[in-house]
Amino acid sequence: MLSLWLLLLPCLSLVPLAPAEKGLDFPQYDGKDRVLDINDKNYKKALKKYSMLCLFYHEPIPDSKELQKRHQMTELVLELAAQVVEEKDIGFGMVDSNKDAKVAKKLGLEEEGSVYIFKADRVIEFDGLLSANTLVEFLLDLMEEPVEVIGNALELRAFDRMEEDIRLIGYFKSEDSEHYEAFKEAAEQFQPYIKFFATFEKSVAKELTLRLNEVDFYEPFMEEPVTIPGKPLSEEDLVEFITEHRRPTLRKLRAEDMFETWEDDIEGIHIVAFAEEEDPDGYEFLEILKEVARDNTHLPDLSIVWIDPDDFPLLIPYWEKTFKVDLFRPQIGVVNVTDADSVWLEMDDEEDLPSAQELEDWIEDVLSGKVIAT
Amino acid sequence: MLSLWLLLLPCLSLVPLAPAEKGLDFPQYDGKDRVLDINDKNYKKALKKYSMLCLFYHEPIPDSKELQKRHQMTELVLELAAQVVEEKDIGFGMVDSNKDAKVAKKLGLEEEGSVYIFKADRVIEFDGLLSANTLVEFLLDLMEEPVEVIGNALELRAFDRMEEDIRLIGYFKSEDSEHYEAFKEAAEQFQPYIKFFATFEKSVAKELTLRLNEVDFYEPFMEEPVTIPGKPLSEEDLVEFITEHRRPTLRKLRAEDMFETWEDDIEGIHIVAFAEEEDPDGYEFLEILKEVARDNTHLPDLSIVWIDPDDFPLLIPYWEKTFKVDLFRPQIGVVNVTDADSVWLEMDDEEDLPSAQELEDWIEDVLSGKVIAT
Repeated sequence: MLSLWLLLLPCLSLVPLAPAEKGLDFPQYDGKDRVLDINDKNYKKALKKYSMLCLFYHEPIPDSKELQKRHQMTELVLELAAQVVEEKDIGFGMVDSNKDAKVAKKLGLEEEGSVYIFKADRVIEFDGLLSANTLVEFLLDLMEEPVEVIGNALELRAFDRMEEDIRLIGYFKSEDSEHYEAFKEAAEQFQPYIKFFATFEKSVAKELTLRLNEVDFYEPFMEEPVTIPGKPLSEEDLVEFITEHRRPTLRKLRAEDMFETWEDDIEGIHIVAFAEEEDPDGYEFLEILKEVARDNTHLPDLSIVWIDPDDFPLLIPYWEKTFKVDLFRPQIGVVNVTDADSVWLEMDDEEDLPSAQELEDWIEDVLSGKVIAT
Repeated sequence: MLSLWLLLLPCLSLVPLAPAEKGLDFPQYDGKDRVLDINDKNYKKALKKYSMLCLFYHEPIPDSKELQKRHQMTELVLELAAQVVEEKDIGFGMVDSNKDAKVAKKLGLEEEGSVYIFKADRVIEFDGLLSANTLVEFLLDLMEEPVEVIGNALELRAFDRMEEDIRLIGYFKSEDSEHYEAFKEAAEQFQPYIKFFATFEKSVAKELTLRLNEVDFYEPFMEEPVTIPGKPLSEEDLVEFITEHRRPTLRKLRAEDMFETWEDDIEGIHIVAFAEEEDPDGYEFLEILKEVARDNTHLPDLSIVWIDPDDFPLLIPYWEKTFKVDLFRPQIGVVNVTDADSVWLEMDDEEDLPSAQELEDWIEDVLSGKVIAT
């Protein structure tokens, strides 16, 4: 049914229909080349020209036809993204790790397959799902202010709801405060992965029990924040604290940094929990999991990756096959990231969820090496 | 930079990287033809063979090369989806509205560009974003039980959180109750667009103030449900009530039925609100909007479409250009769906959100024809 050239294209997604109504017209790639072939001669100019420059750092173009098609698909994703954000003054380029080794070294590119975004004097690595959707959303997030200001109780509720994210909030005298300035500088170094908020309102600060120039650090899914010691805090203080406390006890797998998260295993394994938040059983299981995470957040070696299968529908059948589990119901297991071997906590059915205590015992067995993914 | 055959491909998205770690391997199309060319001779066999059959109903393949490429991309999306769900016993096919007009008529296919899913004796129309992601998620949702059972207070919290969806919940004696059976039959007719829940627990029913065999209907974003009159309710009673109350005062645009929602305009216009729920200003604006919707849900002509720009990053620059608005902050306007002309409520900046009263006055002006999208 399909002509040859289409045979090896890897997964792709959006196909715009042409509705009679206007207002939902998905962009189609117009065929114009926007992605630069970066080399020794043009990289400086490119860096100067755009407010942001995205460089895809890739291994040399392979001989195999299949891998070549894959590379061409990546180019297309970048071309489409470049077209969509063209008016936002964002440039795109590709850097070959062999041919352009010198440029790569100068620019500090290290991980093949990552996209590096140059913005002012910062470099941000994107090691997530290389889809036009995810990449464009990431770039637009980078264009927002690094610190969001919370001005009233309603906005504070929005802040309270973001339990999935690592976030910080500080109370400062005003926008002109030098301590707020340091906070903003630190925020830029973690944007958009870690969210920074500030308030200048006494009433909001009171609600948060924040004193002036104090900054609270919220680990995902924890009920209480940690107040960062020392105040006022310099940019360096903040960066140091965040860097040290960055790996949470429980984190949700996100498209924008999924590969980075997966690479951040502990001794070659991940504890992985599958739970669909929109499903009552999944929600119940997740609440039990959060309770266990809260009770054990002091354990430095405990890091659980929660995957909501709804976020990755194309991976569901793959995971079900690889891990031999039914993802229509909650699951928790240990996965070996080298070979994807795994072992899963037994539950008879979705009504047979473990209690917090049972889950804790199982996790203890995992950490002590009694449960091994083989 | 790109070879010719790639030039006209419309928007696509996922490109799997090849990480050294295992466990996140996105499927790539393997080149095998799985999508059937449906015709008079094979459609009956196909319907019998699979537990679900997805038919893409399309206009005749056009002469223009560009439109041909688009058609091929659609085929690829279907091929990839077919490959991913192959082991779930789901078949795929294409029906040409000209060549296969007779089959289309027999099967009741009407809207070109839609996918029709045949499952047992039901036909479900999918008029959403034709991406492998969205389609696969939709199909997996269709495989779940049509009614979710709520067994305890924690699961009830999951139900409470789903304010974006139209949902029903009924209290029945047991799984064997004939009234529960009728409820399940009705659920199948709206799956997966409308969510059905049931409880057999007195304590859960009490929390919901539900009497035996009573069913509550929750409109999105409303605080209080409506009890469906008459009890016990037959399948027909339920279907009739839902059909009549299906268009809500405020609804969120979702990928899985975005085109259907957009076609459901009122006299050629939509009131459209853009608000990023993850953003404090967006959240605040949305809360005001919900308040106005709750106060005015009695107005039959009031139907507001809320779009969270985060859900459609590729459309953001298009919308900003078409509607001449800044989507980094909340917006509300009237859009003419014929030509995408629009007019937007003036706000100086993101701190200048309208009060509920101001928003209500503006909406009143819209409904009375004082605000016109030109």
